[in-house]
Amino acid sequence: LSSTKEYEVVFQPFGTRVKVRENATIMDAARALLIDVSTICGERGTCGKCKVRVDEGIETLGPLKPAENRHLSSDQIEAGYRLACVCKVRGDMVITVPDMSRQGKQRLQTEGKEVPVTVNPFIKKYYIEMRRASLEDPQGDDERILHVLQDRYGLDPMKLNFSFDALKNLSYLLRTKGWKVTIVIWNDTDIIAVEPGDTTSRTYGFAVDIGSTKLAGFLMDLQTGKVLSVSARMNPQIPFGDEVMSRLTYAMESKEHLLQLQNLLFGALNEMLDECCRAANVQANEIYEVALVGNSSMSHLFLGLNPKNVGFAPYAPAYTRGLNLRSSALPRLNIHPQANIYLSAIMGGQIGGDSVADVMVARLLESDELVFDIDIGTNTQIAIGNKDGVWMCSTPSGPAFEGMQIKHGMRAASGAIEKVTIDPYTLEVWYRTIDDVKPIGICGSGLIDIPAELLKAGIMDTTGKFNLSALKDKRMIKQDRLRVGPDGVPEFVIAPKEESGLEGPVVITENDIRELAKAKAAMRTGATIIMNRMKITEKDLAKVVIAGAFGNYVDPESARTIGMYPEVPIEKVYFVGNSAGTGARMMLISKEARKYGEEIARKVQRIELALESSFPVEFARAMHFPHMDMNRYPITRDLLTKLGRLKPQEIPPIKK
Amino acid sequence: LSSTKEYEVVFQPFGTRVKVRENATIMDAARALLIDVSTICGERGTCGKCKVRVDEGIETLGPLKPAENRHLSSDQIEAGYRLACVCKVRGDMVITVPDMSRQGKQRLQTEGKEVPVTVNPFIKKYYIEMRRASLEDPQGDDERILHVLQDRYGLDPMKLNFSFDALKNLSYLLRTKGWKVTIVIWNDTDIIAVEPGDTTSRTYGFAVDIGSTKLAGFLMDLQTGKVLSVSARMNPQIPFGDEVMSRLTYAMESKEHLLQLQNLLFGALNEMLDECCRAANVQANEIYEVALVGNSSMSHLFLGLNPKNVGFAPYAPAYTRGLNLRSSALPRLNIHPQANIYLSAIMGGQIGGDSVADVMVARLLESDELVFDIDIGTNTQIAIGNKDGVWMCSTPSGPAFEGMQIKHGMRAASGAIEKVTIDPYTLEVWYRTIDDVKPIGICGSGLIDIPAELLKAGIMDTTGKFNLSALKDKRMIKQDRLRVGPDGVPEFVIAPKEESGLEGPVVITENDIRELAKAKAAMRTGATIIMNRMKITEKDLAKVVIAGAFGNYVDPESARTIGMYPEVPIEKVYFVGNSAGTGARMMLISKEARKYGEEIARKVQRIELALESSFPVEFARAMHFPHMDMNRYPITRDLLTKLGRLKPQEIPPIKK
Repeated sequence: LSSTKEYEVVFQPFGTRVKVRENATIMDAARALLIDVSTICGERGTCGKCKVRVDEGIETLGPLKPAENRHLSSDQIEAGYRLACVCKVRGDMVITVPDMSRQGKQRLQTEGKEVPVTVNPFIKKYYIEMRRASLEDPQGDDERILHVLQDRYGLDPMKLNFSFDALKNLSYLLRTKGWKVTIVIWNDTDIIAVEPGDTTSRTYGFAVDIGSTKLAGFLMDLQTGKVLSVSARMNPQIPFGDEVMSRLTYAMESKEHLLQLQNLLFGALNEMLDECCRAANVQANEIYEVALVGNSSMSHLFLGLNPKNVGFAPYAPAYTRGLNLRSSALPRLNIHPQANIYLSAIMGGQIGGDSVADVMVARLLESDELVFDIDIGTNTQIAIGNKDGVWMCSTPSGPAFEGMQIKHGMRAASGAIEKVTIDPYTLEVWYRTIDDVKPIGICGSGLIDIPAELLKAGIMDTTGKFNLSALKDKRMIKQDRLRVGPDGVPEFVIAPKEESGLEGPVVITENDIRELAKAKAAMRTGATIIMNRMKITEKDLAKVVIAGAFGNYVDPESARTIGMYPEVPIEKVYFVGNSAGTGARMMLISKEARKYGEEIARKVQRIELALESSFPVEFARAMHFPHMDMNRYPITRDLLTKLGRLKPQEIPPIKK
Repeated sequence: LSSTKEYEVVFQPFGTRVKVRENATIMDAARALLIDVSTICGERGTCGKCKVRVDEGIETLGPLKPAENRHLSSDQIEAGYRLACVCKVRGDMVITVPDMSRQGKQRLQTEGKEVPVTVNPFIKKYYIEMRRASLEDPQGDDERILHVLQDRYGLDPMKLNFSFDALKNLSYLLRTKGWKVTIVIWNDTDIIAVEPGDTTSRTYGFAVDIGSTKLAGFLMDLQTGKVLSVSARMNPQIPFGDEVMSRLTYAMESKEHLLQLQNLLFGALNEMLDECCRAANVQANEIYEVALVGNSSMSHLFLGLNPKNVGFAPYAPAYTRGLNLRSSALPRLNIHPQANIYLSAIMGGQIGGDSVADVMVARLLESDELVFDIDIGTNTQIAIGNKDGVWMCSTPSGPAFEGMQIKHGMRAASGAIEKVTIDPYTLEVWYRTIDDVKPIGICGSGLIDIPAELLKAGIMDTTGKFNLSALKDKRMIKQDRLRVGPDGVPEFVIAPKEESGLEGPVVITENDIRELAKAKAAMRTGATIIMNRMKITEKDLAKVVIAGAFGNYVDPESARTIGMYPEVPIEKVYFVGNSAGTGARMMLISKEARKYGEEIARKVQRIELALESSFPVEFARAMHFPHMDMNRYPITRDLLTKLGRLKPQEIPPIKK
């Protein structure tokens, strides 16, 4: 049955192309190019993870296969999505592999999405050669330098000031180095250093994302804007509070505790600096600027400021504006002694520099259309807006998606179930673990997949109750998946005992589902309250942007199915990865980005959810999967209806 | 002969008035008002020190008395000068007592002349009360303050930045002090401190004149511009070099020496700060700014910079621009930790911040007419110019006028002869010593008086040679004044053995006269070279300004007679006292003054005398008293001619 006919398949956004024999699958073609299209069922057409968009040649594929009918929602079908493992090539095609179907993207944690920004750093170097001082020309060394900078580079001497440190050895330097030096200028105003010879090609900076959990540092060439090396590690403050609130409480107990946490952080930053310098063959004193982005708590701890007013109502922090600091004001960093340290602006107690970065990276303030931006965490920040205005809130979603308060929840570490799919007809369960080892728990992305899959499979109803009548389902009985646990709570087995790395099976309980519902309901309520305030609905949203390292792991369909964010066609969902790191890099290499960050902090309007009387009602409605008001989730409603999961009385009339 | 008639005498510039009986002397009238008109001969009409200008009523005085004819030069006669001790009141009069005839002025060393400058300090305080933070209004503490500053005082939040130190305890401060604080702002941009309650009435600064010999500090109220207390002491670096060059050499020997000299200076400054604070009941941390003025050497030593390039050709110093320094960059000063330290701009190796102050205080750059400014010292700075341009040079006048290299020379200390007069006819010698004790030497002002008086008395000729034929003069023989000393050098006795506090008499030798001639010739040559460069003559000078603490002691007539500065009518000579201290005070309380100082440093054109080929010739001509070219000193020529001291062949024809 094999054919000798060949067709060309082009894969986007890579622009790579390959010739494959007729009847090879799209997955085969992708594999030939080493493109990592996701699958967890071994290409059996049952996990539905290998969704690709067919941009050209869809007419050669014939009608949807049953597996595709099961896994694709109406918006996806309309947009041309198919499953790569079941579609055979029978003509030339152009295929787009969306982010959500790429396995590799999940290793981007420290990188985030690059946002094009013109390189225009605060630090600039100028090489100059001077005439030596003489009786005929005895001007001061400072004026001599300023005049040459004016003549050669057009710099205005009236705007430039020497730092005292730059002056200290100036006379000696000029007279021993042949009057040839490089001038290091910050912000076109401050001469922070004078170096012998021409060092203009070596101008470096360090961008840092100070996460509560993870620190990521990026050594950058300030002239090209390129990242030269990256270093990441766990935040060393974690032993003093896994959760931020307990860490803040520890810091508030005494000045010593506060300084202890600050010093731990600086110790780690110095290790990261050293690691990056070694990797890129850069010296510490070639790093002239550091830009840092962190949430309000981390920023306060970085500064050694008591975080009390960040952690407790009314959440009015000591500072909100971006800060330029002399390194002498802080514990020592392994950088140039006159380097500038920029700490991003924050917006308020719960909305920190990471949120500024979210809004910057998602370009809300530049957008003509309305953008919805969500950064998921223990506190989830939601921003909605466009160039006419942005509203933002922080919603207390809690640590359920970080695996806390979940029976078999765990952090995203080796052995964590990170992806789950349940065939809605066969009820077969597929999962993938980090590092492909035996499962020992479930991490955040798995915890989002599971309720979505349980709902689609009819194992859980829209209120989050397990459908115990499904016990009678022969397919279920066969696998012994749904059961009442030893503590009397219904639970569903994700990994049976024989597959598990634990003593028993890895399960999800009805109580777990309730915790997850509370977490996602908090997010959804924040969104609803902002949207109500703005008098807009889901239909007005042109884009949903999912930010944060965690967002990278999330299956956007699963998140939509459980009602984590307002329902929009999946084509409108974008991942920007870890905006905090991206924002820090932008702020490091671009004056405009830094200014823009300050503008964001000033312009974005904060909504304090604790003051919203509608919160409890909206929260209760959002406890449903995806939502009590199914009109807000028509695509999901259609999918569930198609799968027979909604009883007629549950299907509300469509509002026209 | 006593009369009951009374007349009113008004004394200027004081504006005081008194009624005196007919035939009382003007001196009697002054004494009645406690006005300190100078005299050293006990009102015998022989010392000529009690010159006053008669502005009204001169017609009642009758013709000049013989004593007046002897002591008054033609320009003084023309201007209405008379001797107060010989003129009797015979009608209402208005009298002006010039600076040069005031005894008290000589104690102004640390004060200088106040120059009116609008108080507009860099440091400003604003008291604000805020609404406390709440869930409804949870803005950051920094933004909250900025908004209130904007609402209450119209300050632009975009131009203001918090120093990190001001932020550090901000949250605690606001919450424990009822949200009522005072904001301390430097230069309308930097929030350097936040203080509890209303401290606006307490805003202080410290101005310092760092002299090579003497330090003077002025604690000032930055709101009123008033001096609250003054402290002065000898520069503690003197033991490491009485003369500046040897001190610089010591500093250049090692980094330790340099730091030792810096620390000595800071130790003294801290003592002065403490003394001033105690006297005015001010706390160290209420001093928010320090402004310092010093010559280039002292400024470099203050900064701990190697002064090599200040002391040695080509005299290109490390810095020339004014510096704003964080106190952390320098040894600790007992001031607010966030205080700004401003060190005046300098112009070059030999023309320092004191010269900037000279030009500022003498207002050269504002003048329509040409001003001649001289600041006498080991190096004497001369500036000539007006608003169209100022030229300046430093001329190596040496330490002769400080008493060095002079047989009986000494510093201005107790027992120093500070004023000398010789009656040109009787050859009687009058002198005054500091503290009115027995003379033990001669200080600078005496060393200027002596050659002038010797010249007028015919004891010395215009080349500085003693007129040994005068030995035959009976008056001279009677007093045994003129003699050949034990070392074979002719000398003149100022204080005979029986009056002297030494073993023998206090004398001046012909060699001393030669040293003094060299010193004054250096000054005069600097002036000539600038004037030649500017193509101007003495007649173009509208004003001669004598600056410096030393200048206060100098008799302007004596200085003119020996040719220390270009000859102008004595009415055009002004004393501005210690400009360095005045300049420091101006720079402390006025932004405009500081800016003006920077402008001076940029605009003034320096002439390097070492490059001037005409120097040796001009110097030789200036070695004469007052000058080889007597046409340049017509007033002095006329006086000497009147006294019969010029032979006909020595009187050059008058150029018309």
